[in-house]
Parts: sequence; structure tokens; C-alpha cells
Amino acid sequence: MIAFLKGAVFERRPDSIIIDVNGVGYEVNIHSRLFPRLPQRGEPILIHTFLQVLENEFKLFGFLDQDELRLFKTLLTVSGIGSKGALAVLSTMEPLVFYRAIASQDEKTLVRIPGVGKKTAQRMIFELQDKVPELKLVEVEKEQRPLLDELMEALEILGYSRSEVLPAIMDLNRNKQLGNIVEENIKLVLKAKAQEMRR
Amino acid sequence: MIAFLKGAVFERRPDSIIIDVNGVGYEVNIHSRLFPRLPQRGEPILIHTFLQVLENEFKLFGFLDQDELRLFKTLLTVSGIGSKGALAVLSTMEPLVFYRAIASQDEKTLVRIPGVGKKTAQRMIFELQDKVPELKLVEVEKEQRPLLDELMEALEILGYSRSEVLPAIMDLNRNKQLGNIVEENIKLVLKAKAQEMRR
Amino acid sequence: MIAFLKGAVFERRPDSIIIDVNGVGYEVNIHSRLFPRLPQRGEPILIHTFLQVLENEFKLFGFLDQDELRLFKTLLTVSGIGSKGALAVLSTMEPLVFYRAIASQDEKTLVRIPGVGKKTAQRMIFELQDKVPELKLVEVEKEQRPLLDELMEALEILGYSRSEVLPAIMDLNRNKQLGNIVEENIKLVLKAKAQEMRR
Amino acid sequence: MIAFLKGAVFERRPDSIIIDVNGVGYEVNIHSRLFPRLPQRGEPILIHTFLQVLENEFKLFGFLDQDELRLFKTLLTVSGIGSKGALAVLSTMEPLVFYRAIASQDEKTLVRIPGVGKKTAQRMIFELQDKVPELKLVEVEKEQRPLLDELMEALEILGYSRSEVLPAIMDLNRNKQLGNIVEENIKLVLKAKAQEMRR
Repeated sequence: MIAFLKGAVFERRPDSIIIDVNGVGYEVNIHSRLFPRLPQRGEPILIHTFLQVLENEFKLFGFLDQDELRLFKTLLTVSGIGSKGALAVLSTMEPLVFYRAIASQDEKTLVRIPGVGKKTAQRMIFELQDKVPELKLVEVEKEQRPLLDELMEALEILGYSRSEVLPAIMDLNRNKQLGNIVEENIKLVLKAKAQEMRR
Repeated sequence: MIAFLKGAVFERRPDSIIIDVNGVGYEVNIHSRLFPRLPQRGEPILIHTFLQVLENEFKLFGFLDQDELRLFKTLLTVSGIGSKGALAVLSTMEPLVFYRAIASQDEKTLVRIPGVGKKTAQRMIFELQDKVPELKLVEVEKEQRPLLDELMEALEILGYSRSEVLPAIMDLNRNKQLGNIVEENIKLVLKAKAQEMRR
Repeated sequence: MIAFLKGAVFERRPDSIIIDVNGVGYEVNIHSRLFPRLPQRGEPILIHTFLQVLENEFKLFGFLDQDELRLFKTLLTVSGIGSKGALAVLSTMEPLVFYRAIASQDEKTLVRIPGVGKKTAQRMIFELQDKVPELKLVEVEKEQRPLLDELMEALEILGYSRSEVLPAIMDLNRNKQLGNIVEENIKLVLKAKAQEMRR
Repeated sequence: MIAFLKGAVFERRPDSIIIDVNGVGYEVNIHSRLFPRLPQRGEPILIHTFLQVLENEFKLFGFLDQDELRLFKTLLTVSGIGSKGALAVLSTMEPLVFYRAIASQDEKTLVRIPGVGKKTAQRMIFELQDKVPELKLVEVEKEQRPLLDELMEALEILGYSRSEVLPAIMDLNRNKQLGNIVEENIKLVLKAKAQEMRR
């Protein structure tokens, strides 16, 4: 429900930050790699958040970019991994490193994460491998991402699966043919697919 | 509890939108017909919302007009239909089209909605038919609606049923006799009903 | 947790009002006597609220003055009376009328409330009679009330019961001896009680 | 989730305060020692808060400084002590007095707290004694505290226990060697520990 918070840093701690948003101080849990990258007290910050609703507590988790938030949400879908485990992954490595480890079934890298043994590493690989297409999108230049996410999800809504449209999107993006209006981009992708069919 | 959010579009996705309301980014789920009608990033938006409180999640659902919000809430009262099903209805058709299908027991139109088979269509018709008076009100010009809603509900509170007062309201509205102050409109309706009784 | 909302009237309905508080539209349930006293659309409003947390819903109830809010909360403590019943009481009569009916065990007045039969009326009288001292405070001029509430509750915290200190408070108030600083008022009451002991 | 509220005092009561934060009035429960130290109506206030999520209620508890909030949270971890008991402790004594009583197993002081008998006092001592290092930190000048907290927690994240690093932190602090940047302070502490090892 709360996708981000934009305000001033009130207090920085290694595992959490308090952000002043118009007089309400939100306590946001963060992973330890984030701490050195945090602005100083009083400085502005926009942090992408996930609101966890527990039986007797509401907890906010925050990330400086949406790739980390997306990976955090994906990790919560893995059986046996809660918010603590998901934070441990992000405290240990960047999303890209993690996706590569999943894609290449690299258990050795995964067991470096505190609390992740051989069994959890295997379960991660087993449950996340089909979600690895994320990996290709991740390698695209950072500033393109929101547009490509928006385009990808629009096509999914229209019934196309990721693997069906990802190649066309990557070609169009590599050839700088994608514009800023998602409806136009959808037409370009469908045209490219139609041409592909005729070949 | 949260009836609307007014802020700036932060991010648009085919099935959700993030709205910046004074530094808090609210993630609001939307139906797919809404996506093309959304303002662009950074532009102002007012979206009518429904807050769903689940055991481990709070979810917001948003609509650009109150007719859609009202239909969404009505659909949630139909046994077996949750937020996903209600969104599917609104993704497929305007409220007016849906109300007509219910009023005319038109199962063929209803089964066009993803996830709605013959059984669900019949249950919709059975459970919603008595709520169809909504249909007449819906045909009235859009900008009149808030006034007529307010008037209708005021009379209900005073003990009148919809069917008792709807004819008088529609006549007064057709003859442009209704003003802006609901208390005055109540008097006009009751006077019309009294005259009706004497005839 | 949310004691009041201060914003602009967005929409008025006989049984609820939507208030725009810096871009968030809060839907607040009201009793029907309140509807005619509501400001018009766009006008400022401050409404005293009670936040009800249910398993799958958050509901706000609102009142234009704190006496009504206080009675609403008191009614919720009566076994068998929920928010709907409490609103019905306030829709039917002012707090003062209700307190008098309780104090004088006047079942006839209480059964005028929709949904309140003989049994519920008797249970109300039985469970609320010891809370009737509220009645004496209610008769004091409106603008004195916050001060007297603050003073009463401060003395309760110090261990005095209502009935012990109410007479002294009423005398001091009648003789215009109470000032604006609650700590000073506490001393005045304790001095009055000490003198009373010596007599 | 809500670490503080910053707004204007709307209403002061011996056991609670209502704060106006941009049009939303938050009701915050306080301990009775706080009441005389509260600003007057209309004056600005920043209060450190704890949000308690119960099955049918959300409750906020507020403190004028973070030591009291920290002790309140610590007390909630003691079996058999809820928010009411934790408030009773803070209503009776300053954190420093409480920590000393725990450190010196002084049951006589603890049973002065309303609702705390011999058994609860012993349970407090038994469950809180290992958390007493707090005591040393508490004696450091007030304005140093946020820096030392931040430094202490950073080192804990890196795997050092409190008792391992507390002596080094206190020495560096006594000799005015700690600066404002926590990363620099971490290096100083680790260097001091390394030298200690070589001796």
C-alpha cells in the first residue's frame, strides 16, 4: 500500500532509518549495504518501501532503488524466506549478482548469505529460476528500466508472456526505437512480432 | 476509510498506479480499462479509492469515477466474488453495460468477463437484480449524479425506500426543478409525493 | 488513535461525510442529526473521530463535539451495543437527554431509539448509571468543559474518585475561582477538600 | 512504524495528548510524569512514539526523549509486562533510576511501581540484567547519545557484541576523539581494539 516515502532523514541507524514526512516520523528497516549510501541527517531522501502487515505490528522495509524492492518482494514468495532472510540477501549482494547466482545455479555464492545453507540455496534456485528473465531486463541501462517495466507489464496484461515479447523489446531498445509513450511502444512491439511471424 | 487520494502520478502500470500525496507514495490497484485514461507522470490526479484490509496486507483499489467505485463495492457483496473478480468486471465493461446485462438477465454478456462462467453469471443476476434501480440513476447526466445520490440517501435515511421516491426524483430532475441545497430538494420530493397521494 | 480530522468537506451524505485532509479523503460515518449541521462542500470542518479496527475493515466515526464522541465511546462499552447501536442513540437524541434518561431510569425515552427494546434499555440503565456523574459535568457551560475534563482526569490519575472531587470542582467553578493552568486548579481543589475535612 | 509525531498540541490530558499533525489529530498515550512537561495548547511538540497494533485497536504511546521510548520497548519484552505496566514504570521513575535498580538488584525500588510486586520485580531483574550495559551509555552526556547509539549499532551489525566494543567507545568518547561521521568512528574503534590485542 505504501510504495515510497519522500521526506528528510531524521535519524540513521545501521539497520533502520527514520524519515520525517510532513511531521510523521516513519521508521523504515533497511539492509546493511544501504547504510553508507544514506544521505546525512536533515537531507532529503526518497525511499521505495514495502509495508509488512503482521498480527501485532506494521513494519516498513525500504530500498534506494526499485530493483532491490522488486527482489525483496520476490524473495518473500520463496517458501521459508521471511523479511529477515530477504534483507540478509540484499545485505550481502546486489540484485544482479543474486540473479546471476540463481541463473547459473551457483550455490557457493548463495550460501555466503547469513542464514542460507545448502538446502535454502537449492530451494531458492528451484523456486526462482523461472523468474530469472528479470536478469536480462536488469542489464539494461538503469534509466530505461521504468519504461521497459511499464511496457513489459502492459503486454502481459494483453495476454503475452514475458518470454514471447522480451526479445522484441530488447531489439527495439538496443536500436533506440522506443519512445516515451507506452501505447506507442506496444504498437512497435506487436508490429515487430507480426513481421517476425511473416518471416 | 480512505475514499480518495489526490496527488501527483509517480508511476503508471497497467494494473496499478503510484500516487504521491505529500511525500507518501500510495500504490493503488486499477482495472485495465483505466490505464489509457491515466494522466502522465507528474500530472495531478484524484482517484476514488476502496481500502481492503486483509490479514497480512492492506490493498487500495482506485477508480476515476464514483460509479465504478460504487459498482466495485456492490460486486464485493456477491458471494464468491473478491477484489480480483470485481476488477475483472470493471476491466471488461462500463458500469452501465454491466447493469443492463443484469437487468436483462443477459448471461452472454456477463460470461465475456474473464473468470465468470455460466454459474457465476447466474449468481450475479440473482443477487444483484434488486439493486438494479442503480441503472435508472446511472442514465441521468453525469454532473447531476452527486446531487441525486445525496438526495436519494437523505430520503432513505428518513425511511423512504428507493422505489417509493425514485419516480418523483426523476420527474423533478427532468423538469430542472432540483436546486443545489439537499434540504430544499427533500421538501420538493415530499410535496410531489403528497400531491400524488391526493390524486 | 485518530482523535480528529481537520480539512475541507469533499462530499456530504446523510450517514457519512468525506473530508479532504491534505489530499487524503477520509470517509467518516456520522449520525443523522449531524447531517443538517454539516458545512457545505469545500468549506472547512474539524470533526472529532473514533477509529474502529475490525478484522477486515477500518471505520471512522465522527462527531462535531467531544461530548458526543465521549458518549459514543461509553456506549461501546455496554454489552450488546456496537457502533451501529451507538450511532442510533446519537441519531435520536443529544447526550444530555440520554444521560437524563439513564439517571431517571426513563425506559420510555430510551425505547424511542431504533433497535432499543425494553431489555436493551434496562441493560443501558444498569451498566451506565454509575457513569452518570458525566451528567453534572455536561450541565456546566460548554466552553468550561475542556478545562474541567482535564482537571477531573488529573485528579483521577492522583487517585481521587470522581464523586470525591466533583462537588469541590463544581463549587470552585460556580465561584469563578478556576484559572487556565491545570496544576493550579489541582491545588485549589485539594485545598478546598482539606478545609472540608477540618470542618 | 511511526517513530515520532511533530505538530501542535491540540489537547493535554494527564494520561494522553492529542497532537495536530497537518490536520490529523493523533491521540498519544503518555506516562503521568510527562504531563507537567508538556507544552501548552497550540504550541509545537515533537514526541517519540511507539505504535501498538492490537486485534481491535491501534494505540500510540509517546515520550519526550528516546531513552524513555527505548526503555518502554525493552519493558514490553519482559514476560507479563504489557503497555500499561511499562507506562507505570515510566510514570514512577526516570530510565536511569530504573536501570540502576536492575543493575543493583534493588527490589525495594522496583516494588514502588504500581502493579509491581516482589515476583514481577525479580522477573524484571532476571530478564533485564544482561541488557544493563544500556546503563553505561545512559550516563554519557545526553547530546552525545545519538552518535554513540549509531556507532554501537553499526559495530553490532558488523558482528561485535556490546561488551566487546563498549570500553573502547567510552575511552574514545572520554578523550573527545569521536567525530560526527559514523564510518570514521568505526575505524577508530577497530584500531583501538587492534592495539589492545597487540598489548
